[in-house]
Amino acid sequence: MSSLLIPIQMRFGDIDSYGHVNNVTMLQYLEDARVRLMSRALPEDAAAGIPEGASFRSLLGERQTVIGRQEIEYTEQLLYRPEPVFVRVWVSSVGGSSFVLDYAVQEEDGSRVYAVAQTAVVQIDRRTGRPVRLDGTQRELLEQWVDAPTRFARRPAPAEARAR
Amino acid sequence: MSSLLIPIQMRFGDIDSYGHVNNVTMLQYLEDARVRLMSRALPEDAAAGIPEGASFRSLLGERQTVIGRQEIEYTEQLLYRPEPVFVRVWVSSVGGSSFVLDYAVQEEDGSRVYAVAQTAVVQIDRRTGRPVRLDGTQRELLEQWVDAPTRFARRPAPAEARAR
Amino acid sequence: MSSLLIPIQMRFGDIDSYGHVNNVTMLQYLEDARVRLMSRALPEDAAAGIPEGASFRSLLGERQTVIGRQEIEYTEQLLYRPEPVFVRVWVSSVGGSSFVLDYAVQEEDGSRVYAVAQTAVVQIDRRTGRPVRLDGTQRELLEQWVDAPTRFARRPAPAEARAR
Amino acid sequence: MSSLLIPIQMRFGDIDSYGHVNNVTMLQYLEDARVRLMSRALPEDAAAGIPEGASFRSLLGERQTVIGRQEIEYTEQLLYRPEPVFVRVWVSSVGGSSFVLDYAVQEEDGSRVYAVAQTAVVQIDRRTGRPVRLDGTQRELLEQWVDAPTRFARRPAPAEARAR
Repeated sequence: MSSLLIPIQMRFGDIDSYGHVNNVTMLQYLEDARVRLMSRALPEDAAAGIPEGASFRSLLGERQTVIGRQEIEYTEQLLYRPEPVFVRVWVSSVGGSSFVLDYAVQEEDGSRVYAVAQTAVVQIDRRTGRPVRLDGTQRELLEQWVDAPTRFARRPAPAEARAR
Repeated sequence: MSSLLIPIQMRFGDIDSYGHVNNVTMLQYLEDARVRLMSRALPEDAAAGIPEGASFRSLLGERQTVIGRQEIEYTEQLLYRPEPVFVRVWVSSVGGSSFVLDYAVQEEDGSRVYAVAQTAVVQIDRRTGRPVRLDGTQRELLEQWVDAPTRFARRPAPAEARAR
Repeated sequence: MSSLLIPIQMRFGDIDSYGHVNNVTMLQYLEDARVRLMSRALPEDAAAGIPEGASFRSLLGERQTVIGRQEIEYTEQLLYRPEPVFVRVWVSSVGGSSFVLDYAVQEEDGSRVYAVAQTAVVQIDRRTGRPVRLDGTQRELLEQWVDAPTRFARRPAPAEARAR
Repeated sequence: MSSLLIPIQMRFGDIDSYGHVNNVTMLQYLEDARVRLMSRALPEDAAAGIPEGASFRSLLGERQTVIGRQEIEYTEQLLYRPEPVFVRVWVSSVGGSSFVLDYAVQEEDGSRVYAVAQTAVVQIDRRTGRPVRLDGTQRELLEQWVDAPTRFARRPAPAEARAR
């Protein structure tokens, strides 16, 4: 499976007055996994022409990424503990100027999954704010993490939303 | 339109290193709008048998609500300012033991919309964690805020996700 | 009393697993009061030579403020409520390149005080990071909010710390 | 030196619009170090009569700890990085119903210190809210981490505050 598994250190402040990790905080866990995937240096055997140690983030220059959309399903409550929880993160699709990251907040061995989620990331020009196409190097960096998209059990159909 | 419009005071800490309201913080704005809708006392002309001043939250007793699912589309970046931003929140559907809240993060007059979102809220038993049916009073409380569901421009079809 | 009284909207997420406003969050309330004092436009009858509508923050230019020190005493626990809590903030001293802000987290009428606090703010050059003297306009802006410093009931003496 | 060294994983969200770890977030780092010290199980060679694996937190029962006071001096700005920052935490004094924790936010080897801080922790009865004396086992648990108190370079004298 082409994915990264990121340990997330829980904080006492992640716990809300219900005694479990707050629903909003879960999105912060995703953010940290996302930043780490995008900061990950290219492996040594990368294609010619890509500077060694380069990452998606280090190559952005005047480009910037923004979040276009997020979706999350909470499957089990997560309690505070000193040991880390893990976020599995991968690329589920690459478009013209955007790509989609999928996540599972889980135990290291996948024995329990607390949430599954998806984020659409859009590349824009820092000054104009307009979308900028992903270049060949960026596609190569992203494609090393491609895997199948998450099946959301509770996502309503787009048509259903319109019909109601 | 049957919805509540909640002013949200922005905080300096809501702004991330990109200089705009962080994508995760937007979900915290939704949470506060949700807590306020659920804490809103019933209007004076409520049906007989419902205690005056009662709210969805005050009537929970041994029941508890948890978040089952969230979805958000970011439509425009939101910058820090001393004046509040507004969250419009309403009920887009009521099920057996759950209901769906929809939101728009927007200017008070709706002239700009920064995000649209949706949350599925499930009622469970505090001890067993199992779903508990919404009772008649709860339905009455929720139905005063019912309106049409949000049309998400970028929601993938469930079938599409499975086919890939 | 030369101070500003800032309403702070509480958030559900401010409450920790003990059911009260978290000790760290209280510092975020201070931050927001501080940003508001420093962004407050000069009153209309300001001295000649200061641009109308100017504030401490708007006049910073290539200068920046950083926090040098903070101290807080918690006097009473603060519970979540839909109504705002208030932060009274004022300037307790003005130095060469720094100034001190004092705060009380309290009810609007001062009938209850949840915390008292103090922050030393240092002005630095954005590029070099070195302290920069406050100029005449900045002193004038700060001096409109000067009042007596907080008496901290539990501050250890500096000598006491050294002797132990 | 009788202290614990706790690695803290930084989060993208810890960084504020100035591009460094926010002053408030630093207090959250202290909170996590504090919770870890107080949850640390007693070493194997502990005195007779203390249950194996017991920690300060696990022995609280109907008692609870609250924060009475905090003080922090920021000595250097801390930038985001994937590697953890460290918090050194120790007990600088033990009183009747309270104790004082001191901290340094630093590199693992102490080569750079980003902040030094101090927290007074008070033990109270969960129902009455009144202070409760530390018992013998609690003192024993705390005393294994005792070291000299931090010298705060910028702490004003209590008398100075009163005289102004």
